[in-house]
Amino acid sequence: MDIGANFDGKSTFFRVWAPYNKEVFLVLYKDGERKVIKMELEDEERGYFSVEVDNAKPGDMYTYMIGGKEYPDPASRFQPEGVHGKSQIIGDFSWDDYNWKGIDFPIIYELHVGTFGGDFEGVKRKLDYLKELGVTAIELMPVHQFAGNRNWGYDGVLLYAVQNSYGGPQKLKELVNEAHKKGLGVILDVVYNHVGPEGNYLSVFGPYFSTRYKTPWGPIFNFDEAYSDEVRHYVVQNAVYWIKEYHVDGLRLDAVHSIFDNSPKHILEEIRDAVKEANPKALLIAESDLNDPRIILPKDKCGYCIDAQWSDDFHHSLHALLTGERDSYYADFGEITQLAKAIKDVFVYDGVYSKFRKKTHGRQVGNLPGNKFVVYAQNHDQVGNRKDGKRLISLVGEKALIAPFLYILSPYIPMIFMGEEYGETNPFLFFTDFSDPEIIKGLREGRKRELGEYYYDPQDYSTFEKSKLSWKLDERILSLYKELIRLRKELFNDFSRNVDVKIEGNACIIIRRKEKYLVIACFSKTHLDLKAKSIITTVGMPSSLPGEVSVGAGVYEEL
Amino acid sequence: MDIGANFDGKSTFFRVWAPYNKEVFLVLYKDGERKVIKMELEDEERGYFSVEVDNAKPGDMYTYMIGGKEYPDPASRFQPEGVHGKSQIIGDFSWDDYNWKGIDFPIIYELHVGTFGGDFEGVKRKLDYLKELGVTAIELMPVHQFAGNRNWGYDGVLLYAVQNSYGGPQKLKELVNEAHKKGLGVILDVVYNHVGPEGNYLSVFGPYFSTRYKTPWGPIFNFDEAYSDEVRHYVVQNAVYWIKEYHVDGLRLDAVHSIFDNSPKHILEEIRDAVKEANPKALLIAESDLNDPRIILPKDKCGYCIDAQWSDDFHHSLHALLTGERDSYYADFGEITQLAKAIKDVFVYDGVYSKFRKKTHGRQVGNLPGNKFVVYAQNHDQVGNRKDGKRLISLVGEKALIAPFLYILSPYIPMIFMGEEYGETNPFLFFTDFSDPEIIKGLREGRKRELGEYYYDPQDYSTFEKSKLSWKLDERILSLYKELIRLRKELFNDFSRNVDVKIEGNACIIIRRKEKYLVIACFSKTHLDLKAKSIITTVGMPSSLPGEVSVGAGVYEEL
Repeated sequence: MDIGANFDGKSTFFRVWAPYNKEVFLVLYKDGERKVIKMELEDEERGYFSVEVDNAKPGDMYTYMIGGKEYPDPASRFQPEGVHGKSQIIGDFSWDDYNWKGIDFPIIYELHVGTFGGDFEGVKRKLDYLKELGVTAIELMPVHQFAGNRNWGYDGVLLYAVQNSYGGPQKLKELVNEAHKKGLGVILDVVYNHVGPEGNYLSVFGPYFSTRYKTPWGPIFNFDEAYSDEVRHYVVQNAVYWIKEYHVDGLRLDAVHSIFDNSPKHILEEIRDAVKEANPKALLIAESDLNDPRIILPKDKCGYCIDAQWSDDFHHSLHALLTGERDSYYADFGEITQLAKAIKDVFVYDGVYSKFRKKTHGRQVGNLPGNKFVVYAQNHDQVGNRKDGKRLISLVGEKALIAPFLYILSPYIPMIFMGEEYGETNPFLFFTDFSDPEIIKGLREGRKRELGEYYYDPQDYSTFEKSKLSWKLDERILSLYKELIRLRKELFNDFSRNVDVKIEGNACIIIRRKEKYLVIACFSKTHLDLKAKSIITTVGMPSSLPGEVSVGAGVYEEL
Repeated sequence: MDIGANFDGKSTFFRVWAPYNKEVFLVLYKDGERKVIKMELEDEERGYFSVEVDNAKPGDMYTYMIGGKEYPDPASRFQPEGVHGKSQIIGDFSWDDYNWKGIDFPIIYELHVGTFGGDFEGVKRKLDYLKELGVTAIELMPVHQFAGNRNWGYDGVLLYAVQNSYGGPQKLKELVNEAHKKGLGVILDVVYNHVGPEGNYLSVFGPYFSTRYKTPWGPIFNFDEAYSDEVRHYVVQNAVYWIKEYHVDGLRLDAVHSIFDNSPKHILEEIRDAVKEANPKALLIAESDLNDPRIILPKDKCGYCIDAQWSDDFHHSLHALLTGERDSYYADFGEITQLAKAIKDVFVYDGVYSKFRKKTHGRQVGNLPGNKFVVYAQNHDQVGNRKDGKRLISLVGEKALIAPFLYILSPYIPMIFMGEEYGETNPFLFFTDFSDPEIIKGLREGRKRELGEYYYDPQDYSTFEKSKLSWKLDERILSLYKELIRLRKELFNDFSRNVDVKIEGNACIIIRRKEKYLVIACFSKTHLDLKAKSIITTVGMPSSLPGEVSVGAGVYEEL
């Protein structure tokens, strides 16, 4: 890496971008001593400062001093003392994952390190469980260093530093290494649209942030104004860094709809090209609220060529239908025809007026293959951003089991949210661990306005505690998930969108796959006239058809 | 038109978009009476209010009343009393330009109505002069209604209203009609990126402006947030309106780099499609600071398919070379090789690092034809945004005459800035006529900071007076321009970029066209070894070559 502290076995080369500044000093903490070393400005125009220090080695701590004050390295790899503390030089890791060939057929399991396993070590201990479940990759919510010990991860402020409370770089590498040895891929959620509110010292160094564009979540990166070459480099190299230094198999790009870039080559396309150069098999998955296939279209179709994007419309159609909820964005959903459209065409809002958004939304996806989209019945946002933080099973009980039939057996990439597979009923709440009183005050006030009677304190340790997985396995549900994953791999092991979707009796969605298989999801009672025998069903569904069906789902083979 | 006041010969249909409001009233001023009429909300979702009034007719005045206060119609066609006053219903116009076939070969003359001719009538009186000059289209700086009587036009606040001090709708139609009858096209400069500071009541009606994006020039239109369908409609229909109701032959879209739109279909593409539907021959020309060919690329190359865009790099290369100026953006220019690159490749910064911008700028244009770009040695911005407002001839004298050889005879669309063709030496200064004391104060303070010792008062009538064309024709210069335009039409009547560009002796640029013609521009003395005889030259250039050349330009035929 050409920024940060890079140890070559003998000396460490420090390099930082600080174009605003006349002087930058390295402050090295080593063997109980504090040494201030003047860095050299390489080139007035670009503003990189660097210095090579002969005896600086892994484990040594350092800061950069600007205007008499010390700050962590913007490209720090490790912050053992947190966002406000010193940075640390990192050593090598002995990888032995050479037999790993990359994710072959993505079936993703989204997890939050802190509430899933406590830390990377805890996640590692669960790898066998996940392998047995049948998923082929875990997706870690962001691990960019954030303030305090607990956070969803979207308040990270140092893109290159691995969260200290999770175990830092060494433990993340051990986790990835172990996952690969067990045949599991690792996808990392990365946040390139904004940085968190506490511990963001980037502006001391340079114009990292846009003066043109705003988001409600904090300052957003400057990808198209003066000095943006270097900010782009900071972000693009970060994507490459996870792939190369951490052997990560893919990145989930958070909220790309809040990444604004007016440059001739969009930053997403640049990230994509750099990542694919580092590892052509690496997966890039975008979270996008735009319903705009430009994100994933190939370059010759004017796209940024990202591998896949999340399909919220599938989630919203399914959720609104299962729960009957119509508040907020669910106002736009609730019709069984919409769910059928989501299964068939991906975007329900594909150039259609949205009442919730008060504008025409989206564009048709055309004939893109199914692995261009990730589908799910729950994820951290859809559970955690609810006022009550409740999971689907807590909202609708048994009915929730219709969901995995529809998304795991869909032509798209399925994603399970941690705990869903065994019927976890603990909520997933919004928790933070800031220390800045102003930020805490603002956060609490904001949450009070938003949540009203549902208010809970995100700073309270118990909020985090409540959100931890209980690991009380409902074996019946777990078996169902295992079986559905097995069926997906055995019967529907491709991403062809050549599926036939029908609605029967305004009650059931019937998806015909591979000619003779029927995935049937029923939201009320009706009679089905098909001739078929069941392969797997929830309660309420008959073992053979024709016959009466009630609320439930099943996979059938037509006779 | 589906917004504004539309008289059908009997009654007038009033329609306004005001989604924020529960009630909107039409206030009709007619035959000395004031009548308040409740408008009907057509549809809660979209927020249009309308009413048909039987006896309302052209000449009648009206306002819309919201919250007890009266405002001009956002789609007003005429504001006889200015931006703060009532709107007027407009009648028909008897067009007799049916023989006009549209602009065939664009040679553009940019003019500011107020300083060129005083008003539309004054411009009309000069049409014969322009016809004789040889240009094929005039381009009017914006005529959207602005505050006061004098303004460049970029402070317009009512997109559909034709500036009252210029003569309003009737006189603009007469001008276009007359121009067409004389065989001249009319292009209109339109401002869709921001609105001016005084008289902007649009936000009373609805969310016309972006909450996401910022420019230094004022609020910018909301093209991608809630309610943006209707804002897009307001703008897209405006483009169509000039083409249809005013028979305008093309639009020059101001500062498209400040139009931000994250929608699947970019607003520029939508404007383009609507305008071409209204008149496939209509020309769309963008001012863009992005050096991004996406603006003009065809749709299958991921472009917005705008017909042409301004080429500032050509201007800057030429200006820096002629004047030796290196301040502000001229810091990036000044090499003869850059001018040669601008002539050959259009963008000098086509993926190259710019010191002035402190970032990599632009993208290569590839093999787009020459009529995708407009070139000029001067325009309202390049003259008027100088601290001294000076024209090229006042800066470099005789040397300025090199310029028309290079741009009029280039493979691109040439554009002359009013007065340039006869050696006008009056400056083009920045003038305004605001009435709001706060705006005036802010403006003066801003100008003082910016101009320092060059400060002049933009509000002072004398500033406008000084900027008026003197019409003191330098017949020698005028003849040269006429001759060059004639040569362009006769010898180089296409836009093929298949031209050979060479630099000789680090002094001259030699452009070979149509095999045997040489356009030679020399910036210092040298010897040229070619064998050629002159067709037209400035002083200092020999009538035949080989020979010594000094600062000047000429067209030669190779022997």
